[in-house]
Amino acid sequence: MGCIVAKFGGTSVADIERIERAADKIAAEVALGNKVAVVVSAMSGVTNQLVGYCSDITKVYDNREYDAVVSSGEQVTAGLMAIALQKRGVDARSWMGWQVPIKCSEVHGKARIEDIDARAMIERFDEREVAVLAGFQGVTERNRIATLGRGGSDTTAVALAAALNADRCDIYTDVDGVYTTDPRICKAAKKIDKISYEEMLELASLGAKVLQVRSVEMAYKRDIPVQVLSSFDEAIGSELPGTLVTREEDIMEQEIVNGVAFTKDEAKVTLFNVPDIPGIAAKVFDALAEENINVDMIVQNISEDGKVTDITFTVPESELEKTLASLKAEGDLSNISIKTDADITKISVVGIGMRSHAGVAQTMFRTLADKGINIQVISTSEIKISVIVAKEYLELAVRSLHSAYGLDAAV
Amino acid sequence: MGCIVAKFGGTSVADIERIERAADKIAAEVALGNKVAVVVSAMSGVTNQLVGYCSDITKVYDNREYDAVVSSGEQVTAGLMAIALQKRGVDARSWMGWQVPIKCSEVHGKARIEDIDARAMIERFDEREVAVLAGFQGVTERNRIATLGRGGSDTTAVALAAALNADRCDIYTDVDGVYTTDPRICKAAKKIDKISYEEMLELASLGAKVLQVRSVEMAYKRDIPVQVLSSFDEAIGSELPGTLVTREEDIMEQEIVNGVAFTKDEAKVTLFNVPDIPGIAAKVFDALAEENINVDMIVQNISEDGKVTDITFTVPESELEKTLASLKAEGDLSNISIKTDADITKISVVGIGMRSHAGVAQTMFRTLADKGINIQVISTSEIKISVIVAKEYLELAVRSLHSAYGLDAAV
Repeated sequence: MGCIVAKFGGTSVADIERIERAADKIAAEVALGNKVAVVVSAMSGVTNQLVGYCSDITKVYDNREYDAVVSSGEQVTAGLMAIALQKRGVDARSWMGWQVPIKCSEVHGKARIEDIDARAMIERFDEREVAVLAGFQGVTERNRIATLGRGGSDTTAVALAAALNADRCDIYTDVDGVYTTDPRICKAAKKIDKISYEEMLELASLGAKVLQVRSVEMAYKRDIPVQVLSSFDEAIGSELPGTLVTREEDIMEQEIVNGVAFTKDEAKVTLFNVPDIPGIAAKVFDALAEENINVDMIVQNISEDGKVTDITFTVPESELEKTLASLKAEGDLSNISIKTDADITKISVVGIGMRSHAGVAQTMFRTLADKGINIQVISTSEIKISVIVAKEYLELAVRSLHSAYGLDAAV
Repeated sequence: MGCIVAKFGGTSVADIERIERAADKIAAEVALGNKVAVVVSAMSGVTNQLVGYCSDITKVYDNREYDAVVSSGEQVTAGLMAIALQKRGVDARSWMGWQVPIKCSEVHGKARIEDIDARAMIERFDEREVAVLAGFQGVTERNRIATLGRGGSDTTAVALAAALNADRCDIYTDVDGVYTTDPRICKAAKKIDKISYEEMLELASLGAKVLQVRSVEMAYKRDIPVQVLSSFDEAIGSELPGTLVTREEDIMEQEIVNGVAFTKDEAKVTLFNVPDIPGIAAKVFDALAEENINVDMIVQNISEDGKVTDITFTVPESELEKTLASLKAEGDLSNISIKTDADITKISVVGIGMRSHAGVAQTMFRTLADKGINIQVISTSEIKISVIVAKEYLELAVRSLHSAYGLDAAV
């Protein structure tokens, strides 16, 4: 017995049949004696349709109105889920963000949850009523609806779990967990049973798009175990069939490397002959920040002669043109020569174990060298080593590394 | 210059193009210096889809959840309309029922508006901001969304007009006004420029489904002139192109008869040999009321011998079976013989002028007799005369009466 928050994403509530199947799972959790709060996304396709309506009228819509329009999708699913639960004899009611209330910032379209006043919900909990909360939304100080940005329902779920002091937050989705790498690239990929918050953060921001990064950050900060599991399997959350993201201490056997992640849609930008004087890097990245360009990897080497240096960084491929335009517009950088390459991939190995193990980087470099793969750029953090290589080596690199770190599933 | 509430029904906001066209009309009203509040329905088809979702899960859904689901349709349109107005340089914002708030009763699915606290809206009005209100919804004492029942957006509009002390409430719809009779039946039908609240009430409840009856009642009580007009025509409300429903005193040339209305989907029930003792009629209609059967016309004659009498009444054809079952279940009525006839139509002539004019009924009876149409039942009120005739005479009767009362349009 415990308190669980269960979140169902868009594909898990895509139609009435799936909503009913999700309701079956909740009913099973309730039958085990658990107190359950459910967070739902919009039925898949609905949010895109609503966003389409807004942008059919104008490309520069008022985000407050966008939020009023788009948040309706989750409202519908919440009501339908409550009905489906009641049909199963489970006492349930829907909650909109403003009814709880889920208080959030005024940054419409990308709001952040500031506070959840769950008192009324907890009161109902004690009467064994399942709360079905519309995800992705809150209410601002000015009493207007704000949405949390795409994927925000994960954050709603984790924030609610924190407010309810829940024992676990189950994220039902269309995959059955987090994998050591993308199974579409590497057949030997295997599901991870437990992974630490820190590793999940690296994997999530590296493009393993199972959980929204913000939700993992929040789970980490508030220490809420989060389980990623499939809504299409028979098992329910309490049987722990998925991947549990939890504290490092709660994971008995810690692997040295837990996953091989990669991104395909990044482009590399190198600035040559950058004067090696203070403030130049700041100018470069100020110019990009102003345009809201999301710079990822940044590498700068010590210059040989102390006069000029090279800076390499990556940006989303879709923002490459904007990046070049904004650098050229910056007068002080006009003498710098720029080279770009969109034919790259960033490959990373992630593992908390590497903190206390030597030779992890060496294994990576040797493995790639053995396959004749040239490493263009290297960047490391405490629990991650990333390299940039030519895109054509993506599959080969991922499979070799996956095998080299002993991650391959037993056949 | 004045204060106007403009309501757009489902077909008037059916898609983005129509929402834009409606926004053009509002922008034109604003350009004339008017303060405008807009009430919108769901885009046509949306409400039916949402209702379908609920009943796909179960036929006995919780009306509170139904309301959460179904009210989202108006929410979407309100946000989109605000965006469309802003695109035209008109300062505007959407309001949900709970944001105003529109306080309503707890009868979910069929709630009644109890109070509108329009202070915040009026404050914004003075800053020339157009308020776009989601129709058909309010918020209950318990902070839950309630809907007003189908067609409730008309009521929202009139109630808002009353709360804002508006000069007029324009109901934009897919017809250009109220007609002297149904133009599909009688080509000579003509649009009425002005009609009294009382007459409109009779016409609305008689099946001229242009305005929801409750909205007309409210307009009458609060003395809000209501205009029915087409959203597909070029003209805007302030040019008064439609039918204005207003006070009798404000109509200069009052016709004796203003319209010929009819219903096609009623059935006649006659109870023979009903004991002519007190309480029997009450028993009959109690039984029907308990089943929520909407009894319309009721006629009982004085009995010849003082022992037994006949009672005739009409019910919706769709409820005829339920009516019979409920009468048979009532033990005290088991000796009464019942005859039913679904092959009937009720035809009514309506006009405030008949109060002060003799011979109005006589014209009706003579006209029908001249065409060989037998009158089965007659019922009259102060401003209406209704008869029941065989359904096959519907067209003939309507056209003859329309002509006899001088309503035919000049050709």
